[in-house]
Amino acid sequence: MWRQGIEQLLREYSSVTARFMVLATADAAGLPHARTVVFRDWVDTNAFAIVSDVRHDKITQLTNNARFEACWYFGEARRQYRLGGTARILDGQGNATPEDQACRTRIWQGLSEATRAQYAWPTPREPLEPAALEAATAPPAEQAAPSTFCVVVCDVDHVDELQLDASPVPNRYEHRRIDGDWTRTALNP
Amino acid sequence: MWRQGIEQLLREYSSVTARFMVLATADAAGLPHARTVVFRDWVDTNAFAIVSDVRHDKITQLTNNARFEACWYFGEARRQYRLGGTARILDGQGNATPEDQACRTRIWQGLSEATRAQYAWPTPREPLEPAALEAATAPPAEQAAPSTFCVVVCDVDHVDELQLDASPVPNRYEHRRIDGDWTRTALNP
Repeated sequence: MWRQGIEQLLREYSSVTARFMVLATADAAGLPHARTVVFRDWVDTNAFAIVSDVRHDKITQLTNNARFEACWYFGEARRQYRLGGTARILDGQGNATPEDQACRTRIWQGLSEATRAQYAWPTPREPLEPAALEAATAPPAEQAAPSTFCVVVCDVDHVDELQLDASPVPNRYEHRRIDGDWTRTALNP
Repeated sequence: MWRQGIEQLLREYSSVTARFMVLATADAAGLPHARTVVFRDWVDTNAFAIVSDVRHDKITQLTNNARFEACWYFGEARRQYRLGGTARILDGQGNATPEDQACRTRIWQGLSEATRAQYAWPTPREPLEPAALEAATAPPAEQAAPSTFCVVVCDVDHVDELQLDASPVPNRYEHRRIDGDWTRTALNP
């Protein structure tokens, strides 16, 4: 299955940057957006977690249109996974289940002090507020996740796997989840 | 200007992977897609070129909705550029100008034999055709660009620049092109 392939690559390439992928979303006007995000953990068989400040555009976009595609390229291995699916925001608000609350808390507590400190910064992408930013650079003392913190659970339902390290031509596989089961089809590269 | 920053990074980091970025597009249903592409060259003050087989989904998507966002992350420098704009396909068909034809030919002739050979492969992402693929692995002899080859001219009109190497907090700048002139605004990270 595609997930085992990624887990194998994460074992072989343990650098922080191996966990970087690019998350693409569409805004309310149907326009594409893309930014680098960090893979945090698997949170279900087919779902992985990233974290975000709720004030970022990607959260607005995913709230409006939950479909995402993440492009995860392992440069040293020359393997690309394009992971498509539906995102769910765990922001601790509303009717969050105990499981969702526990997931959000667990991932918050696993973050570094430096990463946690960012959630106290002034609103991202507003005109620079140097004083507010300076005042916020001390990490927050409390252990509880602040209201600005959310986990984005990315539930994957199709995968395009490209093995550029194969010779003489790359291998390409399409993985599709249908009624809970995964199919894998070899495609032309 | 943002372009000088990228050019400086390309001089400092000359590996092939420094030229990799992720191109996000939206399909006719407004769903996001993302894949790794290779920066080929600047083709105008505000425009860069990538290449593609016209049979790839990204060409269908850009023909329908020309807006793109490219996420270009320079891992060693810890700098991210998100380049948004409008794409134009140079496929050698229809009412291509002499300048467009010349641009397409110049970029084709600058590609490696191995890259050029891909344009003779059977249709990408169709079920695997091993015999057709094997028969097509010899590079085409002709120097003219085949009908499957296109250049995607990505004309940039806004840029989000994130300098994660800045301390104690990242620098973020928004660059916007308004009536041909660029403005730069410092934003909260």
